[in-house]
Amino acid sequence: MSCCAHHDEFDSAFTVDASRVTFGRGCVREVGDRARALGMTRVALFSDATVSALALFDTARQSLRDAGIDVVAYTDTRVEPTDESFRAAAAFATDVAPDGYVSVGGGSVIDTAKAANLYASHPADFLTYVNAPVGAGAAVPGPLAPHIACPTTSGTGSEVTGIAIFDLLSLHAKTGIASPALRPTEALVDPDGTDTLPANVVACSGLDVLSHALESYTARPFLRRAAPPSPSRRPMSQGANPWSDLGSREALRLLGRYLERAVTDASDREAREQTMWAATLAGIAFGNAGVHVPHAMAYAVAGQVRRFHPDDYPGDEPLVPHGMSVILNAPAVFRVTAETDPARHLDAAGHLGADVRDAVAETDAGTVLADHLIAMMRAVGMPNGLGAVGYTGADAAALADGAWPQQRLLGNAPLDVDRAMLADTFARALRYW
Amino acid sequence: MSCCAHHDEFDSAFTVDASRVTFGRGCVREVGDRARALGMTRVALFSDATVSALALFDTARQSLRDAGIDVVAYTDTRVEPTDESFRAAAAFATDVAPDGYVSVGGGSVIDTAKAANLYASHPADFLTYVNAPVGAGAAVPGPLAPHIACPTTSGTGSEVTGIAIFDLLSLHAKTGIASPALRPTEALVDPDGTDTLPANVVACSGLDVLSHALESYTARPFLRRAAPPSPSRRPMSQGANPWSDLGSREALRLLGRYLERAVTDASDREAREQTMWAATLAGIAFGNAGVHVPHAMAYAVAGQVRRFHPDDYPGDEPLVPHGMSVILNAPAVFRVTAETDPARHLDAAGHLGADVRDAVAETDAGTVLADHLIAMMRAVGMPNGLGAVGYTGADAAALADGAWPQQRLLGNAPLDVDRAMLADTFARALRYW
Repeated sequence: MSCCAHHDEFDSAFTVDASRVTFGRGCVREVGDRARALGMTRVALFSDATVSALALFDTARQSLRDAGIDVVAYTDTRVEPTDESFRAAAAFATDVAPDGYVSVGGGSVIDTAKAANLYASHPADFLTYVNAPVGAGAAVPGPLAPHIACPTTSGTGSEVTGIAIFDLLSLHAKTGIASPALRPTEALVDPDGTDTLPANVVACSGLDVLSHALESYTARPFLRRAAPPSPSRRPMSQGANPWSDLGSREALRLLGRYLERAVTDASDREAREQTMWAATLAGIAFGNAGVHVPHAMAYAVAGQVRRFHPDDYPGDEPLVPHGMSVILNAPAVFRVTAETDPARHLDAAGHLGADVRDAVAETDAGTVLADHLIAMMRAVGMPNGLGAVGYTGADAAALADGAWPQQRLLGNAPLDVDRAMLADTFARALRYW
Repeated sequence: MSCCAHHDEFDSAFTVDASRVTFGRGCVREVGDRARALGMTRVALFSDATVSALALFDTARQSLRDAGIDVVAYTDTRVEPTDESFRAAAAFATDVAPDGYVSVGGGSVIDTAKAANLYASHPADFLTYVNAPVGAGAAVPGPLAPHIACPTTSGTGSEVTGIAIFDLLSLHAKTGIASPALRPTEALVDPDGTDTLPANVVACSGLDVLSHALESYTARPFLRRAAPPSPSRRPMSQGANPWSDLGSREALRLLGRYLERAVTDASDREAREQTMWAATLAGIAFGNAGVHVPHAMAYAVAGQVRRFHPDDYPGDEPLVPHGMSVILNAPAVFRVTAETDPARHLDAAGHLGADVRDAVAETDAGTVLADHLIAMMRAVGMPNGLGAVGYTGADAAALADGAWPQQRLLGNAPLDVDRAMLADTFARALRYW
């Protein structure tokens, strides 16, 4: 495996964006005042069946009404959205013609509001804006209507990114739309919404956050990415940079300190708050650096599941939650990527709380980081590798084929990735202890 | 001195904003592409007599022209702007009617472009938007034209803040305009511009940055500030918060490591780059937390100067450069504020590189931090306290009177400040070694 692709000209700068973010318990109450300040008079309020039954949703709706804003709710958002569910949401938005969007929910809800806003603001064939090569990857032609995102899980970071992920049903593949125009205008991050989350949901979403931070921190550095055709088209997945490093390190430090507490004790308010702040920081980081191999592999793990269904998730259909599908690959991946920058990988382990005093980066970084990740996974009840969610060695090639289309993510890895490397890494992720 | 004012209701959340920031050598070349992407067709290009003679200015102008943009330059910006110079710039902008602004220069240039954009976009009597109690402190009624700020010093952080500072000539007082609307749309932070800066300019601007970070880190915490009348009017000087803490700590760490090298060796490209990155981070931090006593005192120090003129600054009129006027107060201030949060003050000293292994926060924090600041000041050639720029103990009361109107900053201190405390602190800042 060679270290990096050759390019005639590398980039020499990085560009970072961040939304306006408000953080604090109770801040969802601010949504009406903030919507009015953004000029909204008629809001499409996005949520889903679960969240719309919570007090937090009522608080948001009442705040909007108290501000004199007309509210039309859309609670048919699908968990793990599809092109079909995105189209349905866009049709709703086109019909209702709001002048602003508010989303209250997890990543699925926020992503659906982004897509509805996009297609209602700039109508086009659905595949127009979808990432190439699946879609045409066209640039969004102008700004969208203002959107205030209120996350209710400490996971996706969607409230601060310009990314919307969905399943393209015809290809049985996860893909997405990525544009700075999709980034919500504001985020209201209210830890109150996480108090009622079940343990396994906190664990899975928290480990997604952990991998956002680790992948951003170890992504191909921005100075080793080819220069964009024009500077204003620098990709959001621009690789590790000093800005994303800062958020990544802090997120790792907070998760190392608080994640286990947040999972095992729902009444530990400090731990749930800090985990949610870590999610926002990691979202800002990966929104400006990009994730890589663990996320690319995760799409195959989630997509090819046969029987597994996790605790604390509704329904009984086969499901590997997104965060679980990511973290199950992570130790195997970081054992391999450590060679590209051992000091950085060891540093990441140290921020997570690993004892690195006697470690020698060149020889130990991959092992120390992977072992610490495995210990954290065990502490919060993750399954023991891909084998524990139903995969065997015979699945490695098909999983590699499933991950291969994620070229936007694979190209952001610190080393060149081919199908053989992916299959080998899937095989090494089958069992960890 | 009591610890804090009593309020019926404290705030429970914080709100952070950040501009789009591009950082890297040569990135000023991107300005044309970025201006076009923002829809600019006719740009008012702000600079000053010194900077407009540099290659960087030509690069920016050529990049705009190559993008097919009409450029009208304004290079009459005054260093240390006044209401008069702001009005002149606004008259120029009103006359030229640009649809976008680009500023290339230090804080004076960027602040002047902000003011010109404000009064050309939303015409009003000059005092309308000026901070109360000097002005009416009215809210800016809507967005301004897009503005790309290209700083050429590693100092003010104005490229990422919504603040414009000037001298109100009729009152002989520094004041400013503060609104999120003033924040530039984008910043292009190009360290190439700092290669030719003289040593004392790097020292003074770098120590301004250091105090931005230290003051943001030690400002009254956001949870101890009174709740705003409505959430969307939360002030930019909202006190220390987890977001500003992150940028402050990193800026302190970078300055502790690189500032002396950046000052003493103009050819040390890494040190000058890292110092400029620290300036941007500290700008983002203080733009969302606010500064306090050292900056409030600095306005009096700069305003009442009699004879002092520093090395490496043009002209021969009496002048205490802004960064120098700030840092000369800092050790005396932090000796006093340490009591409000000893652990945090000791932590700041540690990030700056002080040896804190044997220190006990409760008893040592103020001394350790002040002594380390003094050592850094000596290492980069600062004068030995206010006495070395011409003040005596007889000036303390007048200096306190001069600082007293800076209530926006004094109210952001971690303790209650009165005139007697200010006079005492000025007296303790007369001589440090």
